[in-house]
Amino acid sequence: MRTLVSEVAARVGSTVSLHGWVHRVRDLGGVSFVLLRDRSGICQLVFDSRPEVTLESVVRVEGTAASNEKAPGGVEVRVTSVEVISAAAPDLPFPVNQDPGKTSLESILDNRMISLRNPSILSIFRVQSTILRCFAEHLRREGFTEIKTSKLIGTGTEGGTGLFAVEYFDSKVYLTQSPQIYKQALVAAGLERVFEIGPAYRAEKHDTPRHINEFVSLDVEMAFIESEQDLMTLEEGILAAIFGGIRESNARELETWKSSVPDPEACPKIPRVSHDEAKEIISRETGKKVYEIAPEGERALCDWAAKTAGVEAVFVYAYPRKSRPFYTYPAENNRTKSFDLLFRGLEITSGSVRINRYDMLLENLTTFDLKPEGLADYLSIFKYGCPPHGGFAIGLERLTQKILGLANVKEATLFPRDRKRTRP
Amino acid sequence: MRTLVSEVAARVGSTVSLHGWVHRVRDLGGVSFVLLRDRSGICQLVFDSRPEVTLESVVRVEGTAASNEKAPGGVEVRVTSVEVISAAAPDLPFPVNQDPGKTSLESILDNRMISLRNPSILSIFRVQSTILRCFAEHLRREGFTEIKTSKLIGTGTEGGTGLFAVEYFDSKVYLTQSPQIYKQALVAAGLERVFEIGPAYRAEKHDTPRHINEFVSLDVEMAFIESEQDLMTLEEGILAAIFGGIRESNARELETWKSSVPDPEACPKIPRVSHDEAKEIISRETGKKVYEIAPEGERALCDWAAKTAGVEAVFVYAYPRKSRPFYTYPAENNRTKSFDLLFRGLEITSGSVRINRYDMLLENLTTFDLKPEGLADYLSIFKYGCPPHGGFAIGLERLTQKILGLANVKEATLFPRDRKRTRP
Repeated sequence: MRTLVSEVAARVGSTVSLHGWVHRVRDLGGVSFVLLRDRSGICQLVFDSRPEVTLESVVRVEGTAASNEKAPGGVEVRVTSVEVISAAAPDLPFPVNQDPGKTSLESILDNRMISLRNPSILSIFRVQSTILRCFAEHLRREGFTEIKTSKLIGTGTEGGTGLFAVEYFDSKVYLTQSPQIYKQALVAAGLERVFEIGPAYRAEKHDTPRHINEFVSLDVEMAFIESEQDLMTLEEGILAAIFGGIRESNARELETWKSSVPDPEACPKIPRVSHDEAKEIISRETGKKVYEIAPEGERALCDWAAKTAGVEAVFVYAYPRKSRPFYTYPAENNRTKSFDLLFRGLEITSGSVRINRYDMLLENLTTFDLKPEGLADYLSIFKYGCPPHGGFAIGLERLTQKILGLANVKEATLFPRDRKRTRP
Repeated sequence: MRTLVSEVAARVGSTVSLHGWVHRVRDLGGVSFVLLRDRSGICQLVFDSRPEVTLESVVRVEGTAASNEKAPGGVEVRVTSVEVISAAAPDLPFPVNQDPGKTSLESILDNRMISLRNPSILSIFRVQSTILRCFAEHLRREGFTEIKTSKLIGTGTEGGTGLFAVEYFDSKVYLTQSPQIYKQALVAAGLERVFEIGPAYRAEKHDTPRHINEFVSLDVEMAFIESEQDLMTLEEGILAAIFGGIRESNARELETWKSSVPDPEACPKIPRVSHDEAKEIISRETGKKVYEIAPEGERALCDWAAKTAGVEAVFVYAYPRKSRPFYTYPAENNRTKSFDLLFRGLEITSGSVRINRYDMLLENLTTFDLKPEGLADYLSIFKYGCPPHGGFAIGLERLTQKILGLANVKEATLFPRDRKRTRP
C-alpha cells in the first residue's frame, strides 16, 4: 500500500512505502540523505550507507516514518529497503533540482521533457489546472453550456492573414484564430450562454515575451446583454472565482513563485475607464502625453488601478472602430462597444458586444473592405433572428503568467510554439 | 426583468417579460398561439390577433402568466405587448420546428448554423456539456491535474501517415493524432495523474457512421498502476460519474431521444474479457466462427454483456501486439497489456499500459520498423526515470452518440469535419 509524501507526517512511528523520484542525494559518510519527490511533495529519506541510485531514478522505498525537526516538513523516513523501479541515465540534460532562475528560458524549453520535472516549473501547471477548473465551474453556475467546436475552417472570418494553412486531403483549410463564429452560432441557436476552452492559432511573426503562436483561449459568449458593462461584470465574477480557487488550492505554488492573487472581493472594484480616459490617465501618471496605449502605458494603467482601487487590473472600453474586428458593435464617435482587461500590465482579455443585425453587419463588411461571399454561413446566423449578445476571450497562458509573475508567457505554456520552436 | 420560460409556472397570475425565439405560429382566427423558445424551454403565448412575426425572429413579450392544462407545461402567457428584437428573413433554409428525423443528415449538416436551433438537435450538446463536466470532476476528485498540450508536432510519434500537415512559417508541422507523448511526459515529470480534453486529428479517408477526421479526445494517463485492470477500474468510475450526471441533469434530453443511460451502479459489473475470449463469445452468440472483432462482433459482444451483466458495455483486453501502437506494453504470447471499451456496439475507448523502460522501448521501435532519430524527445522521457503508467482516451462524440442512440457520430459533433465537409 503506497503512502504519499503528504501523508507521512500522519504516520510517524509506522512503516511506510513511498514511491517517487530521486530528487537529491547527499552523502555524509556514515549516513546518506536522499530527497524523494512524488506528486504530493518532497520527503527526506535516511540511509545507513549511500544507496546506488542516480538522480531522477524512480524508486520504491520502505522504512519507518519519524519526526525530525531539521527535515523538510518535520518528518523523514528511515529506509529499510529500496527498489529501483526505473533507473535514470547519469547524463541528466537539465539540472532538475536547481533553481530554474539560474537557467536560460531557451535551455528550459529545449529540454522541456526534463525541465518540467523541476518542482517550481511543474507547479506553474498546477495553478493552470485550477484556472481551468474555476473558469468552467463559475460559468456553469451562471447557466452556461460548454461547447467544443472545430479548429479547422474553410476560410477565415477576418480574411486569410494571420492564419496557418492545413493540407486537408485535396483542399486547404485553416486553423482557427478563435471560435468566434461558432460561439455566436450557438448563442443564436438557443443556448444563449456558452463557453469553450480550446486551442487558437495566430500565424504572426512576433517575438515578444507576451506572444505565442498557439494558445489556449477561454472563450465566453452571452445573449440578451444590455451592454459591454454586463460582460465586464461577468468577467469580474470569473476572476473572483479563479483568484478564490487559487488561494484555496495553490498556496504552496504561490509561495514558490513569491506571488499572490488579488482578493476576490476586490474584483468588483476593478476600474472601468474609456479608451480616451485611459490615455489621459497614462499621460498624467507617466508625465508623457500618449496617443496610443502601448505596453508601457498598460503597465502605468495597472499601477494606477492598484493605487486607486487596490487591484492591479483595469477594464478599458470604447476602443476606436478601426482597431477592432468587423463584427464589433459600433458606438458613437467612431468608437465601439468593446473592452480589454489589463491585468498586471498585460492585456489578458479582449471582448465586445457583437453586431446582431444583419443589415448593419453587411454594411460593416463594406467599411472593413471584406466580401460577404466567403461569409455566407456566418451571415446566416444573423439573417434568421439573433438576440443581442457579446463575449470575450481570456488567454490562459497570459493569465497564468501574470498570476505567478513570470517574465515570459512561454513559461506558462507546457509546450510553447513560436516562430522557431515546434518541439518537443 | 426577464423571466425564463422555466420560471413561468411559478409566476401564474403575475406579469412576466419573456425573451426568445418564435418557434411556431398557429392562427385560429380570433386568437393566435405562438410557441416561444428560450434556453430553458418552450412556452405558449396567446395573442388576440395574429402578431406580425416570422419564425425564428427574436422577440420580447410582456403578458400575464396563466394556467392552462392544454398548454405545454400547463401554463401560457397572455400577451399584452410584443417587440421584435431581431426579425428573421422569411426564407428559413431549414425547418427548425420539425422532427429532424424527417430531414437527411446531409441537409442538417449543410445548414448547421440553422439546424442547431432545432430543440432536439441542440439537446445533444447539452448532454455533451454534462459529459465534459463529469469527466473532469471525477478525475479531479481522484487527484488528476488537467493539462493543455500543443496540437502541433514536428514529427508524428507513429510516423507521418494519417497526419494532416500544417504550413508553419517556413517549415511543416503536423496536427496531433493524440496527446500521447505529452501526457506521458507530464506523468513522468511528476504530476503522476493527468487528463486532457482537446481536439485530435486523423487524416484517414474513411466514410462510415463512426468516423470523423477531427474529434474531441478525453485523455487520461496515470502512474504507478499495477496493470491494465487499474485503468479499466478508473474508467468504470468515470462512466459511473458521467451516467449519474446525465441522469441528474439531462432527463429531458434523454426523453427527447427516447434513450437512457446505464445505471451508474452497474458500471463495476462491466465484463472484462480477453481478445481471445471475446472472439469465442462472438462466435458462440452469432453462430459464426470469427477471427477478428468486426463492427458486427462488437455489437454481439455488447448484446451478450447486456444479457449476462445487465450493462451494454464490455472491456476487451490483451489485444495482439501487431494491432496496437509501439508504445504498448507487451504481454505473453504476443499479446499486449491493452484494452478497448465497447459500449452499445461501438469502441469508445482504447487504452493500455505503456512501456516505461527505455531499453524495451528501443527494442520495440525496431520491431515496429520505426527509427529512434525523430523520437529523441519522446525517448528522453524514459531514459531519465519513468514510473510504470498507462492511460486511455474516450472519444467524446462517440460516447455522446451512443448515450443518445444516434445513428451517426456526426450528429454528435457540433461542426463535423470529414473528407468532404470543411464548413460551416
